[in-house]
Amino acid sequence: MTSTYRPQGVYSPVLTPFNADLTPAPDRFVRHCRWLLDQGVGLAVFGTNSEANSLTVAEKSGLLDTLLEAGVPPERLMPGTGACALPDTVELTRHAVKAGCSGVLMLPPFYYKGVSDEGLYRAFATVIDQVADSRLRVYLYHIPPMSQVPISLALIDRLLKAYPGIVAGVKDSSGDWSNTAAMLERFQPQGFDVFAGSENFLLANLRGGGVGCITATGNVNPGPIVNLYQRWQEPGADELQKGLDATRAVFAKLPMIPAMKAAIAWKTGRNEWATVRPPLIELNGDQRTQLQQQLDGVGFVLPKADLLA
Amino acid sequence: MTSTYRPQGVYSPVLTPFNADLTPAPDRFVRHCRWLLDQGVGLAVFGTNSEANSLTVAEKSGLLDTLLEAGVPPERLMPGTGACALPDTVELTRHAVKAGCSGVLMLPPFYYKGVSDEGLYRAFATVIDQVADSRLRVYLYHIPPMSQVPISLALIDRLLKAYPGIVAGVKDSSGDWSNTAAMLERFQPQGFDVFAGSENFLLANLRGGGVGCITATGNVNPGPIVNLYQRWQEPGADELQKGLDATRAVFAKLPMIPAMKAAIAWKTGRNEWATVRPPLIELNGDQRTQLQQQLDGVGFVLPKADLLA
Repeated sequence: MTSTYRPQGVYSPVLTPFNADLTPAPDRFVRHCRWLLDQGVGLAVFGTNSEANSLTVAEKSGLLDTLLEAGVPPERLMPGTGACALPDTVELTRHAVKAGCSGVLMLPPFYYKGVSDEGLYRAFATVIDQVADSRLRVYLYHIPPMSQVPISLALIDRLLKAYPGIVAGVKDSSGDWSNTAAMLERFQPQGFDVFAGSENFLLANLRGGGVGCITATGNVNPGPIVNLYQRWQEPGADELQKGLDATRAVFAKLPMIPAMKAAIAWKTGRNEWATVRPPLIELNGDQRTQLQQQLDGVGFVLPKADLLA
Repeated sequence: MTSTYRPQGVYSPVLTPFNADLTPAPDRFVRHCRWLLDQGVGLAVFGTNSEANSLTVAEKSGLLDTLLEAGVPPERLMPGTGACALPDTVELTRHAVKAGCSGVLMLPPFYYKGVSDEGLYRAFATVIDQVADSRLRVYLYHIPPMSQVPISLALIDRLLKAYPGIVAGVKDSSGDWSNTAAMLERFQPQGFDVFAGSENFLLANLRGGGVGCITATGNVNPGPIVNLYQRWQEPGADELQKGLDATRAVFAKLPMIPAMKAAIAWKTGRNEWATVRPPLIELNGDQRTQLQQQLDGVGFVLPKADLLA
């Protein structure tokens, strides 16, 4: 046990910048991570919005090493490590734990659909048993709209009983507040930390006893989201929430990942930022125009954009 | 150009045997492949029913090498190579082509849902361009019930025009005959070979001009399926089709992969055969009893089972 840092607050699945030839751009990745940390946002690298599942295990491992070598504090890292093949999940998770990351965000294996809770239990248990490190902190990643493999409350209950301390929390990206509320009620009192899957539910989650959010738009709107996290108990918190919702809605009307990358490309003047890996595609001209007009409409600012260029 | 072998007939996504510790069992894998070849079944290793997406790229590469070293003829191999991360797909596809495999079966990247045809076009095109080998033959793998990422007729049309000769065919596992019929009508006349995704549609597919089927239950019922393929133009073909359907229905009532492995474990007396990787789970006792009774009811025989033990 080397660290007792417990993740909380605002995290973002860090966008993965690519070069024009679709290879990852490690320098811009480091700069983006530093920029996020500077604004109080933790680094959930290799999440859905990082295009993590379009990266190989070796690419993710290499990018993680790049961050560590650049001096990014490992306790602020919560890498996504869940893959379809359990040995891949074990490899990346082990790497993250040895590096001192304070947690990992773990998708269930997501190719086979309609699998049982027993099968998912065995999947997570196999990874935990094979990593075999008491420093491991697993945050379960519940994102049925994308994975199509939900993590049920019964499964969480069973994992918590079997691996207390190791199974540390959840990111709930179901978009279903009643599910988040149930997790808060049943599991947060046991020290199982509930992160909302977007800032839309940040205030509600904090009021319900949750610890923060892990949100895509933390990549582009970090300041205001962190501001709500810091002031959620003050008067005016509901107004702050409305402001966050308005900005997020602009991105959510478009394909989210290309839209966030387009916003950064726009504000930094660096077109490479717009690059995504197939099967995603960059915004077209009409979408870019819509994005820019609507972001102007909500008073969007990308602070210190020059640091990201 | 070293081979003009063109896949046709009956292929099976070869079950991947595991040891009790969940590592692949290469010796049993080789024996199973030889047993299938002996009965006229081609080897679509690393398909859905092979638990391919529960295997790492290195595991699949190693198993492919094991088969080649064991003298399995590469032209009878059609490995599944499609992964979420394009560099993984490129690596395994390149390996298969260099080994002399007569085709690869390619899933689209399947994590991101609701992606565009343009994005999927770029994904396949990127792989084909990066493999950059005129011997490559891509069989598109359309399996929306599992991948949740369909391959549309418009996408096939575009790929065929861009990569004639390279884009060689499809496995249609949609379960929707009208889709298979449309592929047969539009693309088979261009030399784009349509494989039905199960033997349920084998006779209809052959009558419509298709070239065969790639079917899970080829793993356990190879002889009768190959028999229909050989006699489809003779009187009695419809009766043969009914027989195949009856046997398949027994497996399809249960989780298919564990059921097929359980049937082999039963008939060989080798319990290790029942092992699956999480998130799949083996059949329970009731399911095994149901399977055995119903297989007995349809007169199921696993020929030369001792070769699989």
